Amino acid sequence: MTTVSAGQRLARAALTYLAEPADKAVGGLLRACDAVALVAAIKAGCLPSEARTAAGPQAVSGMAGALRHWRARLGEIPAERDLAALERSGVRLVCPGDAEWPTQLDVLGDAKPYALWLRGEADLRFTCLRSVSVVGARAATAYGSHVSAELAAGLAGRGWAVVSGGAYGVDAAAHRGALAADGTTIAVLACGVDDPYPKGHHELFQAVAAQGLIVSEWPPGRTPTRARFLVRNRVIAALSRGTVVVEAGRRSGALNTARHAREMCRPIMAVPGPVTSEASAGCHWIMREWNALCVTGSGEVLEHVAFAGEHLAPSAGVVPADELDPVTARVLDAVPARGGTGPATVAVAAGVDLDTTLSRLGMLAAGGFVTRGPRGWRLARGGGA
Amino acid sequence: MTTVSAGQRLARAALTYLAEPADKAVGGLLRACDAVALVAAIKAGCLPSEARTAAGPQAVSGMAGALRHWRARLGEIPAERDLAALERSGVRLVCPGDAEWPTQLDVLGDAKPYALWLRGEADLRFTCLRSVSVVGARAATAYGSHVSAELAAGLAGRGWAVVSGGAYGVDAAAHRGALAADGTTIAVLACGVDDPYPKGHHELFQAVAAQGLIVSEWPPGRTPTRARFLVRNRVIAALSRGTVVVEAGRRSGALNTARHAREMCRPIMAVPGPVTSEASAGCHWIMREWNALCVTGSGEVLEHVAFAGEHLAPSAGVVPADELDPVTARVLDAVPARGGTGPATVAVAAGVDLDTTLSRLGMLAAGGFVTRGPRGWRLARGGGA
Repeated sequence: MTTVSAGQRLARAALTYLAEPADKAVGGLLRACDAVALVAAIKAGCLPSEARTAAGPQAVSGMAGALRHWRARLGEIPAERDLAALERSGVRLVCPGDAEWPTQLDVLGDAKPYALWLRGEADLRFTCLRSVSVVGARAATAYGSHVSAELAAGLAGRGWAVVSGGAYGVDAAAHRGALAADGTTIAVLACGVDDPYPKGHHELFQAVAAQGLIVSEWPPGRTPTRARFLVRNRVIAALSRGTVVVEAGRRSGALNTARHAREMCRPIMAVPGPVTSEASAGCHWIMREWNALCVTGSGEVLEHVAFAGEHLAPSAGVVPADELDPVTARVLDAVPARGGTGPATVAVAAGVDLDTTLSRLGMLAAGGFVTRGPRGWRLARGGGA
Repeated sequence: MTTVSAGQRLARAALTYLAEPADKAVGGLLRACDAVALVAAIKAGCLPSEARTAAGPQAVSGMAGALRHWRARLGEIPAERDLAALERSGVRLVCPGDAEWPTQLDVLGDAKPYALWLRGEADLRFTCLRSVSVVGARAATAYGSHVSAELAAGLAGRGWAVVSGGAYGVDAAAHRGALAADGTTIAVLACGVDDPYPKGHHELFQAVAAQGLIVSEWPPGRTPTRARFLVRNRVIAALSRGTVVVEAGRRSGALNTARHAREMCRPIMAVPGPVTSEASAGCHWIMREWNALCVTGSGEVLEHVAFAGEHLAPSAGVVPADELDPVTARVLDAVPARGGTGPATVAVAAGVDLDTTLSRLGMLAAGGFVTRGPRGWRLARGGGA
């Protein structure tokens, strides 16, 4: 299921400890050499030779400075057994190259996450293929919380995952709305997934992990800061197909998320509210200044983010075929629309070995494409259309 | 002050009695012959020879049918003395070619009003040069009425006139907001200006006439119908520089006004509201479907309708020079920015005779361009910039 070696995985885990996310020096170096070489170089205190060759003298000087900063955290580097212990506690690492890695993060270029820390049952890549970010102010009004929950429930009810930041106000209402509709939701944090912030959302985060995912670029143990929230926002925008701002004042961090989505040319949407409410001023502002689309419900959101015709399907399951890797697509094609069939039959029909077929079926199930019924695997309702 | 002869004026008055407004057969015939000839033809019961020559045989057949309909109201045609009596009662007629005629109505083509009946003190043409239509639902919520009044007061406070339909709800709040800010407001009715509908707005209409204008295409005595409201809406849209829908359900007539404005390529704007309110659903719909601009206050409205830089002036008075006729522009140029001067001095400086100068000064004053102070005429504050 992965092409990432244990050594590379450990090195990427180490990078999340050593450097803050979105450090473009790391991004640049990872283009010149792999993670193992980079971590070895940081330990040795001198740039990898590949990087010296690829970069100009000025860049090398800047990178050398960065190297000194990263060395400050050398004592935090995890060992293989630390990763194993974390995995036993329900915290796993997903790296570029893993089957679960959401390739839409590549849009971030050198600011791409080095790896992501995850807690929860869902498959990140498949869940994000049909996901929308729903964000907004912590100081939400009753109106904002209500609309956020309704919107998220509507999206979840049509098989779309809801991505948000786990904060009080709009974020929490969005997660809760998706959970209430038995949907999948992803909380992207600015701290370690082992101790999600804010603590007042302890039960909410438990529910999110049980029914979706808690995601972070920061390793376990890290606490959030204002700067980290802003860096985190680009991942919320990049993971999802579009971003909806439900309620936000003119200075809300939610506008920062919308700005990231806009820079990635993803649809940005805003829910209007009373013009007499400061809590909606940011929504109206991005409609005017950034041409954010005015949306009043989940149906309109899906008009902007769904593949053509997809949201018209009665339920989840129309395949975004261009986003599936060929092997997974073959497995999906081998699953019957009605009745059900065993994995061995699917494997033969797909021409894929049984172990791979089983893992791909699990991922397809997490993404809402297939379902396991009493007679075996079949397409989810509305699927295969 | 006018190039319209008494005969033509009487004929146009007659046309408002004989035909419903926006009758394209009248519009077409008025391109082929003048109003006197057309009324004579209607009386005689046969098409004017110019029209027979200009139109093809099929058009002639259609026009002949229309002619029979118009003849049904021959008994209502007013005499010269009737117009004089109406004028004494405060009701005047403005015809294309009059100095007070708003030439922006020409955008309506063959559906252009034959003439307009007016009651009130303001000059129609000058008032409309800087005007915005503020329209919306009769069944406005407290939110809609509040926002409508605030918006209109803000526009009026910056020297802009507010055009609306005199109805309950948003329209009434818009008129009242403009009046409260000592501004000018225009009520465009679907009935005679002698007996404005709804009667519950009797006092409001008195105040509008005292501080602005009541306008109608229908002659005195006519009562409103549903069809007439819809025909009237195109005049609201055509008179003003842009149309704002404050609050409107999906089936509100206010959307019809916005549609007319859109077809004329005038800016259409909508005030957002709670997505949980049916009363704002039409506003959100035209934002999505017609790209209506999202506006939350009068400043944003003026960004869309003002001449470049105009709304930045501290007050009314920056001249839309391309909309003034050359004689009026010369009179305006002769008015000093500070102090004040007598009309004779202005007349000499402008090279325009004293009577004409006096009448143009009156019109310029009605439009908010000049003001009469203790030392004589001067530009209104912010004027001449």
